[in-house]
Amino acid sequence: MNTVSPLAPKNFPEMPALPGLRLATAACGIKYQGRHDLLLAELAHATAVAGVLTRSQTPSAPVDWCKRALLGGTASALIVNSGNANAFVGKAGIEAVERIVEAAADLFPCRPSTVFVASTGVIGEPLEDAKITAALPALKEALRDDGWKDAARAITTTDTFPKGASRVAAIGGAEVVINGIAKGSGMIAPDMATLLAFVFTDAAIPAGVLQDLLAAAAAKSFNCITVDGDTSTSDTVLLFATGRGARHEAVDSADDRLLDDFRDKLGQVMLDLAHQVVRDGEGASKFVAISIEGAADDGAARRIGLAIANSPLVKTAIAGEDANWGRVVMAVGKSGEKTDRDRLAITIGGVPVAADGAAVAGYDEAPVARHMQGAEVCITVGLGVGEGRATVWTCDLGHGYIDINADYRT
Amino acid sequence: MNTVSPLAPKNFPEMPALPGLRLATAACGIKYQGRHDLLLAELAHATAVAGVLTRSQTPSAPVDWCKRALLGGTASALIVNSGNANAFVGKAGIEAVERIVEAAADLFPCRPSTVFVASTGVIGEPLEDAKITAALPALKEALRDDGWKDAARAITTTDTFPKGASRVAAIGGAEVVINGIAKGSGMIAPDMATLLAFVFTDAAIPAGVLQDLLAAAAAKSFNCITVDGDTSTSDTVLLFATGRGARHEAVDSADDRLLDDFRDKLGQVMLDLAHQVVRDGEGASKFVAISIEGAADDGAARRIGLAIANSPLVKTAIAGEDANWGRVVMAVGKSGEKTDRDRLAITIGGVPVAADGAAVAGYDEAPVARHMQGAEVCITVGLGVGEGRATVWTCDLGHGYIDINADYRT
Repeated sequence: MNTVSPLAPKNFPEMPALPGLRLATAACGIKYQGRHDLLLAELAHATAVAGVLTRSQTPSAPVDWCKRALLGGTASALIVNSGNANAFVGKAGIEAVERIVEAAADLFPCRPSTVFVASTGVIGEPLEDAKITAALPALKEALRDDGWKDAARAITTTDTFPKGASRVAAIGGAEVVINGIAKGSGMIAPDMATLLAFVFTDAAIPAGVLQDLLAAAAAKSFNCITVDGDTSTSDTVLLFATGRGARHEAVDSADDRLLDDFRDKLGQVMLDLAHQVVRDGEGASKFVAISIEGAADDGAARRIGLAIANSPLVKTAIAGEDANWGRVVMAVGKSGEKTDRDRLAITIGGVPVAADGAAVAGYDEAPVARHMQGAEVCITVGLGVGEGRATVWTCDLGHGYIDINADYRT
Repeated sequence: MNTVSPLAPKNFPEMPALPGLRLATAACGIKYQGRHDLLLAELAHATAVAGVLTRSQTPSAPVDWCKRALLGGTASALIVNSGNANAFVGKAGIEAVERIVEAAADLFPCRPSTVFVASTGVIGEPLEDAKITAALPALKEALRDDGWKDAARAITTTDTFPKGASRVAAIGGAEVVINGIAKGSGMIAPDMATLLAFVFTDAAIPAGVLQDLLAAAAAKSFNCITVDGDTSTSDTVLLFATGRGARHEAVDSADDRLLDDFRDKLGQVMLDLAHQVVRDGEGASKFVAISIEGAADDGAARRIGLAIANSPLVKTAIAGEDANWGRVVMAVGKSGEKTDRDRLAITIGGVPVAADGAAVAGYDEAPVARHMQGAEVCITVGLGVGEGRATVWTCDLGHGYIDINADYRT
């Protein structure tokens, strides 16, 4: 891995074993040398599965496959490779997927439609799927109850640290585990472009309920982060529930009060992973939280937040430790969402810098400047037109991003 | 001015005098020292005017003023200052505008609602309008028939060269002049954010027709360029027709066949100015044309083109002279517009690099690499879903942009 991001967490978290799930990794040499690049997760019979996948109009073959496989609602195995995205290679892409899932289905055995796949890496080069299918038998032999850090590391591409998160949730009197891993250096990476996250629980939750829980959690986590607004062809978030943990009462709706704590802890795991992706944003030196209040509705608040978070002018100002709130005004304006210019209020690091559509006369610049010099920057924007609110997270845009993404070939 | 952009035209164009229009510039010291920062244009009685202004929800006070003044359809004077945008300063903004237009109306004399104003520069600082009103009497004395280059220079902020364009158009047997000036280093500039363009003709064209002509020309010029997708609070394009040139038949519709050549030449002036703005994009080293064909309709083609042109990953790849067409695929996908991944075709410098949704096997990389090393990059994307087409223009994103926009205060 490259030099670790200055915003990385100190340690990979402790992650307990999760009944009904075993993991293994291997080096199959798709692109990287001297590191594991293949992950196999074996899931107990009748594991429920839910997913949210990229809305890109040019999705990868594994994304197409997962969308169809999700209709079945059950999962037997997950296979993830790094180094090649299996995207934009025409018919060869789906054929590679089919050979992989059929090999896995023969091996376990299980139905091919219960095998989930994800690929991350170069776009436009055929995936050497034979390297993956050849590695599967030994991978199956190597399956074990732990190995979360190895799993998180195997799925990385340009990430500078492996990403994991874990919580214990109560469902009635029973305690269940929620473990997640993710990869992504933002939505973005050189020649690669993928956010992948896989979350597992030993709770017993039907696929339909699981899907509702995942969609709600994704809306407030992965869908509220951005590094540069470039959406991957391969973004994939899957949530698996093995049902092999402590017994609990049956749940049949995502709104079930029994799921209150689970919903909360799932949200925490997803947000923790999403924040780690931002903290590994390419070239990032600042972790930035942008909170919007008083928008027409929550959706408008999120879109305004993302307009600010994706603005190159805002992001370069943050890289420069410049409390340039005029650029925030510009980004609010360009979002196209309803706003009242003459009620707009902005705080930076908690200090009001603009209110009622103009600069706060004589605000103390010293604490604002100190805040901008830190590694964590908080900006709030009050719109004064409604009750909508959202928080989005991003990183700054500096020379590091250019260094990583402008690959001078001369 | 800063070091001139490597993409700048060799010379400022020859621009003839334009009957019914006189110009003057002055140094009134709003922000810049030792250069002219104020432009006055005097327009003949009953000059028709049309405008397209920023759709920002946080527009500047001059933008608000111009939108209202355009309802009258006639113009007597145009006053433009650089150094301060008169934006996001609350009620003080519109009061400053009112004092300026009233001073001008007294001076000429004319109705205040026929005085047009534009300001470009810092956001959020009150405009010292007294410096402008104090300069007006001497400016009026200094009015002359020429001075286009001085005028173009007076309205600049971070621009590295003054921008002008001129054409002669035939309306029936009569020849009329179209002269335009513009400023803008993209949509974007440090602490400033403005594209301004003022186009003048001595043709006699009613305001309603002029508005239709301007909207159509803007759609294919200024609305098809981007430096970084950041929309200004102050973008203003105004078109004035003095009616004091060679006599021609009356025109009463923008579709009038009599206007064919005028429409064409107006489009050329607008596109010329728009291209000059891109060529002065902050830190730009490449001028990039992106042509989209086969989209569902022309609007979809333009939106796909802009998704590519605004993608930081595409722009950094171009800065790095890397023919990374996988990033173009990603950007097409994220646009959300209808596309058929498996019919997508991409050429770079005229060389097909992708077709039918996959890389062109064994294409010759040498001419593509040579093309990427040049100062002008052409990318075409064929979508294969309809007849829609558009071309958009942008520049690359490299270290120069970060240098200019990350103002390290430490």
